[in-house]
Amino acid sequence: MNQHTVKAFDNDIGQLRGLVAQMGGLAEEAIVKAMQALGRADLSLAEEVRAGDAAIDRLEAEVERLAVRVIALRAPLANDLREVVAAMKIASVVERIADYAKNIARRIPQIEGEHRIEPVSILPAMGRMAGEMVRHALDAFGARDADAALAVLDSDRALDDFYDSIFRTLVTYMVENPATISQVAHLLFVAKNLERIGDHATNVAEMVYFAATGIQIADRGGKERN
Amino acid sequence: MNQHTVKAFDNDIGQLRGLVAQMGGLAEEAIVKAMQALGRADLSLAEEVRAGDAAIDRLEAEVERLAVRVIALRAPLANDLREVVAAMKIASVVERIADYAKNIARRIPQIEGEHRIEPVSILPAMGRMAGEMVRHALDAFGARDADAALAVLDSDRALDDFYDSIFRTLVTYMVENPATISQVAHLLFVAKNLERIGDHATNVAEMVYFAATGIQIADRGGKERN
Repeated sequence: MNQHTVKAFDNDIGQLRGLVAQMGGLAEEAIVKAMQALGRADLSLAEEVRAGDAAIDRLEAEVERLAVRVIALRAPLANDLREVVAAMKIASVVERIADYAKNIARRIPQIEGEHRIEPVSILPAMGRMAGEMVRHALDAFGARDADAALAVLDSDRALDDFYDSIFRTLVTYMVENPATISQVAHLLFVAKNLERIGDHATNVAEMVYFAATGIQIADRGGKERN
Repeated sequence: MNQHTVKAFDNDIGQLRGLVAQMGGLAEEAIVKAMQALGRADLSLAEEVRAGDAAIDRLEAEVERLAVRVIALRAPLANDLREVVAAMKIASVVERIADYAKNIARRIPQIEGEHRIEPVSILPAMGRMAGEMVRHALDAFGARDADAALAVLDSDRALDDFYDSIFRTLVTYMVENPATISQVAHLLFVAKNLERIGDHATNVAEMVYFAATGIQIADRGGKERN
């Protein structure tokens, strides 16, 4: 590339990073708000999360258009190409993360029955953990920090253990309080959504690691939980 | 493009379509086998589905590499570019569909307790419906058939209704048979995975429609179920 092209490419990649960071911020906020809405039985906050998802979808479409244009116009090589493709893939994963937050928000009306069910109180801590994983994975992308990306993989193991414990707690609660089964079934899905958010934050971290180093982290395909 | 480039592009796009069709076939097979494994409590078939997922992941990586190369080398315009991007995005969705089939396969050991639980028998029909949606969406892509893509959207409404009915049936069963709650909770997740497969088949159909017509189907964001 000549000097002019290099500068144009740097601008493009900077813009891509900015859009992805913006998406990450919105996705993390959606998780935090969804869990607040659940904790406080705040249906209007839940609706806000649901409505906010369209903005994230639009940003993803923008990342895709820009990435395709950059590849077509600047024909970047090796490292640079890896970075553009990573931005596009990460945007798609962040969009999925935001979808999980939206799904949590959507369940809240069904979790709020006549009476508050007690296990609702154990979910916010899991939500915080998942939200932080998303932030750390996106920060690692912003800083091209392979080590920070690896740390996200460790958090995912902790989140998976948390999920397993919550799954058992919720099943026990259902057995003991059959009248609440329908509400608690929705909580099971909320816990599962948080666990999936952690998996996706891990995927982002793996992509960041690959974009930064060119090395694929060994297939971690065995990590999906019940 | 000159004559030579056009021919090279046609070859590339043909190869992309072939890879995506191959992925679709494997994903549909994974759904069928996972549901057979569930129906027959066949743990070795379940393990086969789990192990087969790596082949689909490899195909997706191949589609991505080829698509990026085509965009960079041939700089396709408008319609052609839309088609290459669609192939890449559809491959990514098909990979997710196969992941859901893998997740179903993984749950089977936990569903098979000391006694067979009766609601297992209602899931295979839902599995067939979801598998057919995947096949129809991929067939529509292969045939660039916008009308066939629209038909998939109608099937999704039927699948969503099926899911809602299964959700209620499973919750009722848990209330009446508290000893089976843990097993039935896993079945709830199986039903949810099938419902998500239908959502993703719908996404594919929307992408096929857009690739074929250049028109975005109005945002169907409201369709996610409990």
